[in-house]
Amino acid sequence: MTTSTLPMLENYPQAISLDRIQLAATIDILDDCAEACTACADACLSEPDVAALVRCIRTNLDCADVCATTARVLSRHTGYDATIGRAMLQACVIACSACAHECGLHAEMHEHCGICADACRSCEQACRDLLAAMD
Amino acid sequence: MTTSTLPMLENYPQAISLDRIQLAATIDILDDCAEACTACADACLSEPDVAALVRCIRTNLDCADVCATTARVLSRHTGYDATIGRAMLQACVIACSACAHECGLHAEMHEHCGICADACRSCEQACRDLLAAMD
Amino acid sequence: MTTSTLPMLENYPQAISLDRIQLAATIDILDDCAEACTACADACLSEPDVAALVRCIRTNLDCADVCATTARVLSRHTGYDATIGRAMLQACVIACSACAHECGLHAEMHEHCGICADACRSCEQACRDLLAAMD
Amino acid sequence: MTTSTLPMLENYPQAISLDRIQLAATIDILDDCAEACTACADACLSEPDVAALVRCIRTNLDCADVCATTARVLSRHTGYDATIGRAMLQACVIACSACAHECGLHAEMHEHCGICADACRSCEQACRDLLAAMD
Repeated sequence: MTTSTLPMLENYPQAISLDRIQLAATIDILDDCAEACTACADACLSEPDVAALVRCIRTNLDCADVCATTARVLSRHTGYDATIGRAMLQACVIACSACAHECGLHAEMHEHCGICADACRSCEQACRDLLAAMD
Repeated sequence: MTTSTLPMLENYPQAISLDRIQLAATIDILDDCAEACTACADACLSEPDVAALVRCIRTNLDCADVCATTARVLSRHTGYDATIGRAMLQACVIACSACAHECGLHAEMHEHCGICADACRSCEQACRDLLAAMD
Repeated sequence: MTTSTLPMLENYPQAISLDRIQLAATIDILDDCAEACTACADACLSEPDVAALVRCIRTNLDCADVCATTARVLSRHTGYDATIGRAMLQACVIACSACAHECGLHAEMHEHCGICADACRSCEQACRDLLAAMD
Repeated sequence: MTTSTLPMLENYPQAISLDRIQLAATIDILDDCAEACTACADACLSEPDVAALVRCIRTNLDCADVCATTARVLSRHTGYDATIGRAMLQACVIACSACAHECGLHAEMHEHCGICADACRSCEQACRDLLAAMD
């Protein structure tokens, strides 16, 4: 689907110090990663080998929350203070990296873990790229 | 962007009582509406006539939270209990309808309110359609 | 601990149609229930019989999200529109009732499920009482 | 009120590397700060001088989201990985410090900003203390 993220940013009424296209793409990736992690935690819960997946589920839940909050912070530009956005991006890199690793361990057994690992890796990279652009 | 929502649903390891394509589309619309509402609240905060937009901001904040929670509930299928999903969809119809109305009042003045009103109307309709499909 | 909820409500600068003491108590109970459900989902994940607890975990996750959003909606009074608050309270009654039931099934085996079931029952009742006060 | 946080932690079925009393107190303070920030954003929206408070509102919204996510991450102990918790605590120190500063600027005019600034300062300190305990 075409999201509202870029049109909303293009109509933000004041200056934004970051490139709006890169920012919108990053927010979309964060929202997608949050969704994938929520779905992966639930899919893992329904697997017969759930006992082997508890660490994966936990990391999924953390990563979903961290990505969702990062997306919200990056969606706000009023009274811009780069320090909070930067700190959330750093936390998100760590959460996505941990979740990509955990899901990656189960990707051959469980296709949903493979899809989620890919979403986490894309998100980690997008967050790193935005952090680099903020410097 | 192509989201992970449908691939994740297609790889959920057990039965889902709803049509996976409709469900994935609804979740994507919910996530988009949550994002639009978060962005619209912030854009309103940066408008010179913010004092005229406080009701719009408040409704945006409610709608963002309600849509995000509805998307999460609909993304879980383990131990399926239709009653919580149905109640959240009903709350979401009300929140989206209220937010579409409020944003609609400012759509001529503020393009971001117009985009957000459209996102809310799409989301309200998708929630109504999914509720109908659940009966 | 003494929360900030009632002092914040007492200093809200405009009229609130509900009793501020009842409202603050309800919000505190909602926040506590959200916290208990998040913790119970995680404690269940660490139990040796996790496979028997997947439905409980799922309901905990839903209930945590629904309570957190209900608390947020009830914490906003600007541009008051009773319909969203009422719909969220109704969804919360359903989520808390379902979670109290699920956790109750495991309360003899797992003390954390017993504590969480109590938190859910208190929250369900507080939501019902606030709904009654809104009529 | 007496929260369920410590009883839930005391009944977590496996080892926790942190002191459970300090951890429970920190989670309670985080939940309280999230609640105060949500309420302060809304109270600011209802002030006649809302145009002077837009930066405060924005920081409140960020701080509410960051505190809520930090509380959730700290409430999970299964598959413990200190790096995510530490990164969220660092982000939370920054968000609380920024919000305490912003709200502090308006504390003489608006009692709700003073209460929220106190909640943010307590939360910042609790997060710093927990970070120190993690080393």
